Amino acid sequence: MKDKVVLAFSGGLDTTYCAVYLAETKGLDVYTALVQTGGFSDEELAEVARRAERLQVTKHVTLDETENYYQNCIRYLIFGNILRNQTYPLSVSSERMFQALATVRYAQEIGAKYIAHGSTGAGNDQVRFDLAIQILAPELEILTPIRDLQLSREAEIDFLKEHGVEGNWEKAAYSINKGLWGTSVGGRETLTSHSTLPNEAYPSQLQGQGEQTITLHFEQGELRGLNGKTYDHPVDAIREVERLGALYAVGRDIHVGDTIIGIKGRVGFEAAASLILIKAHHVLEKHVLTKWQLYWKEQLGNWYGMLLHEAQYLEPVMRNIETFLADTQKNVTGQVHVRLSPYRFEVLGIESDHDLMNAKFGSYGEMNRAWTGEDVKGFTKVMGNALKIYYAVNEDEKVAPGSLTQSTDAQS
Amino acid sequence: MKDKVVLAFSGGLDTTYCAVYLAETKGLDVYTALVQTGGFSDEELAEVARRAERLQVTKHVTLDETENYYQNCIRYLIFGNILRNQTYPLSVSSERMFQALATVRYAQEIGAKYIAHGSTGAGNDQVRFDLAIQILAPELEILTPIRDLQLSREAEIDFLKEHGVEGNWEKAAYSINKGLWGTSVGGRETLTSHSTLPNEAYPSQLQGQGEQTITLHFEQGELRGLNGKTYDHPVDAIREVERLGALYAVGRDIHVGDTIIGIKGRVGFEAAASLILIKAHHVLEKHVLTKWQLYWKEQLGNWYGMLLHEAQYLEPVMRNIETFLADTQKNVTGQVHVRLSPYRFEVLGIESDHDLMNAKFGSYGEMNRAWTGEDVKGFTKVMGNALKIYYAVNEDEKVAPGSLTQSTDAQS
Amino acid sequence: MKDKVVLAFSGGLDTTYCAVYLAETKGLDVYTALVQTGGFSDEELAEVARRAERLQVTKHVTLDETENYYQNCIRYLIFGNILRNQTYPLSVSSERMFQALATVRYAQEIGAKYIAHGSTGAGNDQVRFDLAIQILAPELEILTPIRDLQLSREAEIDFLKEHGVEGNWEKAAYSINKGLWGTSVGGRETLTSHSTLPNEAYPSQLQGQGEQTITLHFEQGELRGLNGKTYDHPVDAIREVERLGALYAVGRDIHVGDTIIGIKGRVGFEAAASLILIKAHHVLEKHVLTKWQLYWKEQLGNWYGMLLHEAQYLEPVMRNIETFLADTQKNVTGQVHVRLSPYRFEVLGIESDHDLMNAKFGSYGEMNRAWTGEDVKGFTKVMGNALKIYYAVNEDEKVAPGSLTQSTDAQS
Amino acid sequence: MKDKVVLAFSGGLDTTYCAVYLAETKGLDVYTALVQTGGFSDEELAEVARRAERLQVTKHVTLDETENYYQNCIRYLIFGNILRNQTYPLSVSSERMFQALATVRYAQEIGAKYIAHGSTGAGNDQVRFDLAIQILAPELEILTPIRDLQLSREAEIDFLKEHGVEGNWEKAAYSINKGLWGTSVGGRETLTSHSTLPNEAYPSQLQGQGEQTITLHFEQGELRGLNGKTYDHPVDAIREVERLGALYAVGRDIHVGDTIIGIKGRVGFEAAASLILIKAHHVLEKHVLTKWQLYWKEQLGNWYGMLLHEAQYLEPVMRNIETFLADTQKNVTGQVHVRLSPYRFEVLGIESDHDLMNAKFGSYGEMNRAWTGEDVKGFTKVMGNALKIYYAVNEDEKVAPGSLTQSTDAQS
Repeated sequence: MKDKVVLAFSGGLDTTYCAVYLAETKGLDVYTALVQTGGFSDEELAEVARRAERLQVTKHVTLDETENYYQNCIRYLIFGNILRNQTYPLSVSSERMFQALATVRYAQEIGAKYIAHGSTGAGNDQVRFDLAIQILAPELEILTPIRDLQLSREAEIDFLKEHGVEGNWEKAAYSINKGLWGTSVGGRETLTSHSTLPNEAYPSQLQGQGEQTITLHFEQGELRGLNGKTYDHPVDAIREVERLGALYAVGRDIHVGDTIIGIKGRVGFEAAASLILIKAHHVLEKHVLTKWQLYWKEQLGNWYGMLLHEAQYLEPVMRNIETFLADTQKNVTGQVHVRLSPYRFEVLGIESDHDLMNAKFGSYGEMNRAWTGEDVKGFTKVMGNALKIYYAVNEDEKVAPGSLTQSTDAQS
Repeated sequence: MKDKVVLAFSGGLDTTYCAVYLAETKGLDVYTALVQTGGFSDEELAEVARRAERLQVTKHVTLDETENYYQNCIRYLIFGNILRNQTYPLSVSSERMFQALATVRYAQEIGAKYIAHGSTGAGNDQVRFDLAIQILAPELEILTPIRDLQLSREAEIDFLKEHGVEGNWEKAAYSINKGLWGTSVGGRETLTSHSTLPNEAYPSQLQGQGEQTITLHFEQGELRGLNGKTYDHPVDAIREVERLGALYAVGRDIHVGDTIIGIKGRVGFEAAASLILIKAHHVLEKHVLTKWQLYWKEQLGNWYGMLLHEAQYLEPVMRNIETFLADTQKNVTGQVHVRLSPYRFEVLGIESDHDLMNAKFGSYGEMNRAWTGEDVKGFTKVMGNALKIYYAVNEDEKVAPGSLTQSTDAQS
Repeated sequence: MKDKVVLAFSGGLDTTYCAVYLAETKGLDVYTALVQTGGFSDEELAEVARRAERLQVTKHVTLDETENYYQNCIRYLIFGNILRNQTYPLSVSSERMFQALATVRYAQEIGAKYIAHGSTGAGNDQVRFDLAIQILAPELEILTPIRDLQLSREAEIDFLKEHGVEGNWEKAAYSINKGLWGTSVGGRETLTSHSTLPNEAYPSQLQGQGEQTITLHFEQGELRGLNGKTYDHPVDAIREVERLGALYAVGRDIHVGDTIIGIKGRVGFEAAASLILIKAHHVLEKHVLTKWQLYWKEQLGNWYGMLLHEAQYLEPVMRNIETFLADTQKNVTGQVHVRLSPYRFEVLGIESDHDLMNAKFGSYGEMNRAWTGEDVKGFTKVMGNALKIYYAVNEDEKVAPGSLTQSTDAQS
Repeated sequence: MKDKVVLAFSGGLDTTYCAVYLAETKGLDVYTALVQTGGFSDEELAEVARRAERLQVTKHVTLDETENYYQNCIRYLIFGNILRNQTYPLSVSSERMFQALATVRYAQEIGAKYIAHGSTGAGNDQVRFDLAIQILAPELEILTPIRDLQLSREAEIDFLKEHGVEGNWEKAAYSINKGLWGTSVGGRETLTSHSTLPNEAYPSQLQGQGEQTITLHFEQGELRGLNGKTYDHPVDAIREVERLGALYAVGRDIHVGDTIIGIKGRVGFEAAASLILIKAHHVLEKHVLTKWQLYWKEQLGNWYGMLLHEAQYLEPVMRNIETFLADTQKNVTGQVHVRLSPYRFEVLGIESDHDLMNAKFGSYGEMNRAWTGEDVKGFTKVMGNALKIYYAVNEDEKVAPGSLTQSTDAQS
């Protein structure tokens, strides 16, 4: 009986090569697995399955991780308003991690001896796969033919032909990766530092006209409704936001960031839902959370994103941060109004029972019964103590930093 | 001989009231001072001077702090890419501080006994003025007639009429504050949580058509050129960016934030130059700085903004942070291409001799001579040590977080 | 019927004055309350009750908050290894907060109209009491006779005499405040910057001889056993550690810190249990937590301490931080051996099933099966990528920072 | 002509093996270099030179990096009060980095083709050497015979015998590493988690009796004087503090920490000077710096230590942090009194012209002219605004966290 290998399979050239190589050259029983994290349509899934079938793998499965991915990751990306370097919603970084985790689980379930992925030696994904496997399933041996053999596309195609596998392996102008949390677009321009992706490189094209206002309903930080309709599954609501945003070609940008392996990488993306949700959620939070809650959420969210990006999802501190983030969402409930226009969106405002601004308590700029001018004088006096002492003790520093320019044009 | 008072004067109802009240009721020699931080045109300055003259103050001066404000504050706001809560460029917060500092300096220069400002008891500005005065000039007595007397507009107007001062004191629909670093717009909608400012509330109106690409040239973090033209003074370059951005009505948003006095405040703003510069500068930095430089700049920048907003500009740690930020700018030199479209802008890309991405060294996703797949395997193995040990010791936690959903639709 | 006032009462001169003043001068029904946070012996509590009785207050109660104080505060101070400025265990800061909270609760329970405390206008405690009251019971009116009247001790004593209250009001050389989490000692030397408290100023005096080794047993971060004996209540175990530590006069130091009102304050303390527990707990954590768990615990613990110190216990972010800290304690279970000697203690070592060091996995400095020298070479190569690129791009900076001194002596 | 190799040489078994192996087996011209970072006596240096001579290496040099090490590293460790995990002064971590840097520089100076070090594959040092070389001198080829060959001690000794090199290669019970900033002690007990080093394992033994008070004089953060004597070189003053502290066997502890390669490591150390200086300097800073200066110094110092420990000394952010830390030391000038007793020391107090506590301004706990009780009332009122609003809006949370225990023992 042959040993089993589970291969993370996408139907592309590299993983097709792997499937044939593992079966024919290595003599293994090949189980292909495609992990759905929300980016594939049913047709696409069926097409990948057909391709696997044609390769006569022992078995092909689709592992639907979408809900799991939402519950154990995206939820926290929203809670934390997480954009890597204030820009990138971590679409691929997060999704790849969950693909690795699901593949490991499946390999353990079927008692595989090997686990294989098609990563090259030049990106982040190899680290994500290798780490997940080594940590959770050290008993599995990792096979990475593409990384090890470093074949050219031509060599791969030739090998496949020799083994009777034909296909249209033409390389697309842009490499596109689609998931629930966004679509990445890489190629040509993103390999430079100075130029941007052309309109046509993006999968969605502007269809909406004029403007459209949508209302997002959050409950304890999760999207539970849209334009008055309630959703049982936030995933479905997110998809609908994505659909509407995509009509306006909203949510595009280019990110340049630090990869796990130390080089800078640049990638375009289109992520209407994630950018809209994060900004809307953030504005809602600015109304219902205190200053220090906002501050610490930002600190911990920032790190959650960094560690997730760097394949450290399994770091136990990630669970601690998730607990923190979830704990802050108790009052993050309310409606957020967002206006979509071609290529951009604006958050118009929010409504929430927990709004700390609309308190009957007093409004900014208007006097009220809560405190008097005298109170603020006392406040400022005491608040100033530390610096008054500092400058009394260190008199030489007591120069208004503005004193460089003495320019006073007198008149009258 | 009468005692001297310096009054921070804007020519509006409140400070006009103060001027008359201080002279007539309090019997002081009134010196009015208007601090220019880049928001007033020459005509506006002359008009304020004329108003002061009509009130027969002892003397009126314009204190031009623009360059000083840039050198000692805005520069650092750019170095730190500082947006309060990722949104607000601190236009008013920063400018008011420098107005307070300049007023204090002037009062000391002319040997005033009193210093007066027109703040009410319900905002941040009173704290900024009071603190600056108490810390730098504890010998000056602070007078704040508006805060103390809490008169209605009608009462103020009546008082002025009694003293022979006529004027058109109609209240504008929106209160507008213009400075080098942005224009704030408050009123009506900003007093609610749910609605946004209408187009007409903003001072700039869309005039540009189609798109326009501009190129910003940074040298060590400062804007030194625009579209090929070199500027001796970054302030002039900033003004030109503002002019171009305003044609496209770029840089609008609404911010809701925590005031110094503990309540939430909401304000609209239009700040083309600051938003364009900060995003452009940030993208350039993402190419030329290391991961940890970016990280620590963000941490310290965030606090610089928070303390500046909260009237703590004189905290000595601010000087330490400025030193840090300036030290990080050594290599932040290069060109940034920005595309302006109606109501939005995009950063297209950068060019820099210090670009860490375009190194001949290797590109993301492409194998190269710098390291091999074997190296990355070793890297990942060692990088995984800590978590491998953790999960070996704590076996019960060794469950792929994804294991909630077992959904595997098999096929083949 | 007279209005009720609850007075936080300690039996000292100031609160005795308040009791009489509120009853006689203000004509109120005085309810005195002493909040026990673990520092008073039964005899002391009875003595305070007798004093209240002698003053003929309407009613005196002892509110025993010890367990509550432990559950809602001290527990987190241990979880977070919290020492203000790496020094002070926040003994008084934390205890005072819980005294304020309990007093407010009692005032609400009995339907008081007023609440009174004996704070002066020159310390932190007034802020702690005022804030707790204003936030939780804005309907209560705050009375602070000592702060308002600013009487001398003599004037207070005279007033009491006039009202038939005699007592020994001699001022002690040092003001001592004892609680479950430590004893503060202030006076004479602590009012200077240069001198330290003499031995006799401390309540505990050295009695132990030689050395004694004790073993602390932690379960999920809480002290559950000592020297083999199990404790149902961590509070009792803490007390026993305090008793043993005090025999060796362990846990003394002087802290100088920033007060809420902006001035620097210096205070001595003796806190055997808190210093021993925190160091022991921290060492245990260094064995069972990951690097980033330790890092983030330190960050959040630091802030928990700062906000607690500054009377911000009710900030909602404090609840979020508590959730985080508690979540990190899952594996913080094990024994810690501590050696007590006169005036000092050492943590000798730990034993824990969750110890990440004693993994069969490999030991520092010894080669093992987990990775090879080749792996580390690969690790270092990839880990070095970012800086290799940085210095390749910025060649002028590529000078070993050590190159100032070219000193190479000797040779052979 | 043979190729040159520079070998970091200590005279111990491993590097002796390397010297012979590189010359005989590899046929290279061997240049041995010992980097002095303050831990070797002149006798020891001479002895190592003699050993090198006996091996007939081409040339042996001592590179004296002590001053350089102080100027470019230790200085900042003091400025930042840096103790890894609040415990370990980074004695070896920092010193090893400077040994690597100096060796690289020397290899470049003499035009070597190779650079060799005797690290094994199981520790931090290999990473420090490899990284320094790869980053600063990518043209040099790295040779690590010990890591690559993984020989037993016996095999190394046999090899040396075969090549006519005799020596006493008995393994010491503890491996000791001495440097300017402390001595590390590893072996036996440190390989366990539960037991501590015996007294005899430490190089210094208690000689002092009774107590001794010493006075440290800091100027802008640097140690410039001791007991009234001025030192031109802080290094000399540090050495004298070490000598005095060692008489009292002060500064011992055991650290368990995370290594670069992901495992936990435990090591004992004796570091009188570094522990005394850091605590003394920190106390001085608590008197002369503001709260936020202390806060940010701690944040950045913490990271400086972490990155230094992890071989990231060349990260450009380290230079930025150094700039920050140096900028904060302007006023850190004054005397600190420290009392040495057997096995422990206490900081007694400080004197400084910049002391923020001894301001004539007001003392903690005493009323003064700077502010009144009324001011503090206003302060507290305004300071409480945010939470008052929070709890007014979220009434269900408005329960004193202390309300679990209702225990009120009434009486009277």
